[in-house]
Amino acid sequence: MEASAPLQPGSDRAVKNVLFIMADQLRRDFLSCYGARHISTPHIDALATRGVRFDNCYAQGAVCGVSRMSYYTGRYMSTHGVNWNFVPLPLHNPTLGDHLRPLGLRVAVVGKTHVAADTRGLERVGSDAATSCGRLAGEGGFEPYWRDDGIWSGPAVPADNEYAGYLRTQGFGAANPWHDWANSARGPSGEILSGWEMRWAHLPAAVPEPHSESAYTTRRAMEFIDECGEQPWCLHLSYIKPHWPYVVPAPYHSLYSADDVPQANRAQHERQSPHPVLQGFQSQAASRSFSDDAKRRHVVPAYLGLIKQLDDQLGQLWEFMTRRGLWESTLVVFCSDHGDYLGDHWLGEKELFHDAIVAVPMIVVHPGSAARRAAVEEQLVETIDLVPTFIEAVGGVPPWHQLEGRSLLPLLVTGGDSAGRGREYVVSEGDYAFRSFVRDVTRQPVDACRMFMLRSREWKYIHYENLRPQLFDMRSDPAELCDRGADPALSGVREQHAQMLFDWLRRRQIHPTVSHREMDGCTAHEARVGTRIGVW
Amino acid sequence: MEASAPLQPGSDRAVKNVLFIMADQLRRDFLSCYGARHISTPHIDALATRGVRFDNCYAQGAVCGVSRMSYYTGRYMSTHGVNWNFVPLPLHNPTLGDHLRPLGLRVAVVGKTHVAADTRGLERVGSDAATSCGRLAGEGGFEPYWRDDGIWSGPAVPADNEYAGYLRTQGFGAANPWHDWANSARGPSGEILSGWEMRWAHLPAAVPEPHSESAYTTRRAMEFIDECGEQPWCLHLSYIKPHWPYVVPAPYHSLYSADDVPQANRAQHERQSPHPVLQGFQSQAASRSFSDDAKRRHVVPAYLGLIKQLDDQLGQLWEFMTRRGLWESTLVVFCSDHGDYLGDHWLGEKELFHDAIVAVPMIVVHPGSAARRAAVEEQLVETIDLVPTFIEAVGGVPPWHQLEGRSLLPLLVTGGDSAGRGREYVVSEGDYAFRSFVRDVTRQPVDACRMFMLRSREWKYIHYENLRPQLFDMRSDPAELCDRGADPALSGVREQHAQMLFDWLRRRQIHPTVSHREMDGCTAHEARVGTRIGVW
Repeated sequence: MEASAPLQPGSDRAVKNVLFIMADQLRRDFLSCYGARHISTPHIDALATRGVRFDNCYAQGAVCGVSRMSYYTGRYMSTHGVNWNFVPLPLHNPTLGDHLRPLGLRVAVVGKTHVAADTRGLERVGSDAATSCGRLAGEGGFEPYWRDDGIWSGPAVPADNEYAGYLRTQGFGAANPWHDWANSARGPSGEILSGWEMRWAHLPAAVPEPHSESAYTTRRAMEFIDECGEQPWCLHLSYIKPHWPYVVPAPYHSLYSADDVPQANRAQHERQSPHPVLQGFQSQAASRSFSDDAKRRHVVPAYLGLIKQLDDQLGQLWEFMTRRGLWESTLVVFCSDHGDYLGDHWLGEKELFHDAIVAVPMIVVHPGSAARRAAVEEQLVETIDLVPTFIEAVGGVPPWHQLEGRSLLPLLVTGGDSAGRGREYVVSEGDYAFRSFVRDVTRQPVDACRMFMLRSREWKYIHYENLRPQLFDMRSDPAELCDRGADPALSGVREQHAQMLFDWLRRRQIHPTVSHREMDGCTAHEARVGTRIGVW
Repeated sequence: MEASAPLQPGSDRAVKNVLFIMADQLRRDFLSCYGARHISTPHIDALATRGVRFDNCYAQGAVCGVSRMSYYTGRYMSTHGVNWNFVPLPLHNPTLGDHLRPLGLRVAVVGKTHVAADTRGLERVGSDAATSCGRLAGEGGFEPYWRDDGIWSGPAVPADNEYAGYLRTQGFGAANPWHDWANSARGPSGEILSGWEMRWAHLPAAVPEPHSESAYTTRRAMEFIDECGEQPWCLHLSYIKPHWPYVVPAPYHSLYSADDVPQANRAQHERQSPHPVLQGFQSQAASRSFSDDAKRRHVVPAYLGLIKQLDDQLGQLWEFMTRRGLWESTLVVFCSDHGDYLGDHWLGEKELFHDAIVAVPMIVVHPGSAARRAAVEEQLVETIDLVPTFIEAVGGVPPWHQLEGRSLLPLLVTGGDSAGRGREYVVSEGDYAFRSFVRDVTRQPVDACRMFMLRSREWKYIHYENLRPQLFDMRSDPAELCDRGADPALSGVREQHAQMLFDWLRRRQIHPTVSHREMDGCTAHEARVGTRIGVW
């Protein structure tokens, strides 16, 4: 319903700008404010002190593409239709930019979005890529101030790749300077040792830190903010790290050693008779590598170094914001799209629904005078809550027929009506159809591989088509080591969660082109215009 | 899956053209080939003799907008997102035209589609309405050879309305000649008696039959076909009748009398303690009018006349097709979008899920030499089956990730693999949120008014949010007079059907931008391009 009035703590329009920071593949438990003892992230911790740290925020997908499209649309995978990476964003999805731009904000990205343009769809509807709208539609609604999804593992990058061009101007030339300098180390004879091979994770990246991706990203963000001047803005500052390749420039490559690597969260029985989907993912290369403790202890220090570098970059950004006086007018968010298994549960990478992956960091700082400070919020929230939060924070009215999140504003301010705002459960979705090595185990066709996770206060329930569900008792087994999906004693719990999933499925916002207000007023409208059906 | 090879009975490409005829608001049981004894429809019957008459075909919606968007997209309401009339078609829906045009067919409409352009969405993505694609996107993919949704109850029609212009050139001038001549009768002093008032249903329309909507529609269809010449085509010939207003030109206004009107299918107990949703719809004007037997017997003869006129028009069309030699190359379909209660169950109009509304006529004639003739098919089929049927019939491969129907081809040919092709159940959907007079009874918010009907072989189950379901035993009570939705003895049946709905909801084709083939080949593709994630 459009009914809820925007809540404006402190002033008529407390929020002028939105700084929406995302890290890629960052585990929540590798931040000291979220309890990490093996690494200190003082700048991220400082942000938490300024605002609200959400301790039960779940991403709506366990891979970049799914999760990010939910972040950007405020809609679940079932509704936005992007069921994996590289899947083009279907055209019925308005995004953050579409919602905030009409409210007067310049909405841009610096860094990664992983949005794939639906070029076939855009062609079908006659979209003109030469127009501003046509371009934005292919960018998920973000002005690409500097958009780059990184990775670039091939022999060359496109000629117009900005960061590669930057590297070249700094003297780091190559057909693919991104790979050769930012994502590689050097051997004793100067040979290129690719960061794509995890054996080189202990070596420093060839690029000097000030020219690395993360440092460049921070500077481009500052440049964008300065360019905006008095123009209100929403910047999606989207770091490409600590996502693999696991290679980090000096001095971060040597800050952590094998001794700093926490024990993997896994038990032998998890690979003795695993759920078929778990078994499939345990078979991939990253899972095998991270299941070897020696390799794991060799690689994770680089991941820690990448996080430390990111934290230092944010420290520089906070100083910049202080110098520019931006804290008073800017809503700041720090989050990640999902985590990284790093050997937990005998897995590498991501794609499944353990807390290591889908329980993401979420820190939100509201600039208003009534905002909560150094607060910890235990309620279950979802990453799709950000879009309506941003809209309300800058004074707009969320179009609820296009959104499935809930505004977090009541949880951000003292005296906000936070009671009962938390959810009974949160949902995350995925599709392992893209992974033939998993289908080889489950023997399912590609159209029967969708996965649904429901996390309630006490339980985590994961539905698979034609396979038994998984079930974890999050109170007695927060490490999720004991899958009780087949425990006869818990059939009632499973039925209860299946019913929740059924209820949830029926309530998707399927109709983005007609608002609740229009639906509500339809009969009155017909009476007004004199439609006279069936009168004598 | 893309696996199924196109089935081509008789020749390599038996089907050159597709003639997709739809009547608006036509009840199946008002056709003599479907058992009507109060009217004879020899030309529609003749079509059934030429091909396959489907006796258990269900429309996917109970109002025009929902049902037609399913017909045109091959997708359920939950997937296409059009939950009522006038709701703009969301942009992620490829339509019949998008599928058939690349196969070499000219795809056009003559008559009604009820497609509402998503102008806000098209603007958002920079669609250029000056381009052919932009125009088609606003027309649901149909070239508007002559597109008009009819009705036109207002004081004037747009200056460029073709049929109104035609009427004027024939001497039937008015600000709204459509209303004043086609939809109205004349009083003793020549005064205009609007067909929107059902009291005038016994009078002839002011327009002479050869200039009436239905006759004009048929001629435009012939004109289109002749214009195409050797160019293959798909014509959606979409008659605006027998939809209200209930007024028909002479001699059809006087062919039937009150004595020809069959008894209404209703029982007193249906209005004594009705389901709240039924009660809401029973309160509207059309329901009240048709609940009065005198009024009903006054109006239904005009509805019968409209059907008889339509049947005669089709007779002319069949002769035209014979003269042009089109039967050998053309797949012909006759169907309707939904029925008309006409007083059944104390209801007028439509919107609910009794067979009078959602069990639609469906006759399909395949021109191939192996096609079944004079066949009756009892299997449960859906109207969304037509899109994949058309694609396969003309030699294409249906993009199953965008379609939720099943090809009917195996049911159209002798020796086709029809065994097990029928469904376990069919689904129809709706949303009464647009009807405040129903919400006044159910006390539900607009986002809790979606309705799901499942019709299995033996039962019809209708789910309502926060209200008890309805349940009908289709074997012992085919008239659907006894709602057993609260019968304690049938809780198991209701649970079984709720489980079917749950299963169905999880299996929607949510991802129109990535094909099953692309999903299936993703892992192999990654190996081919050398993606090396997590290797040592």
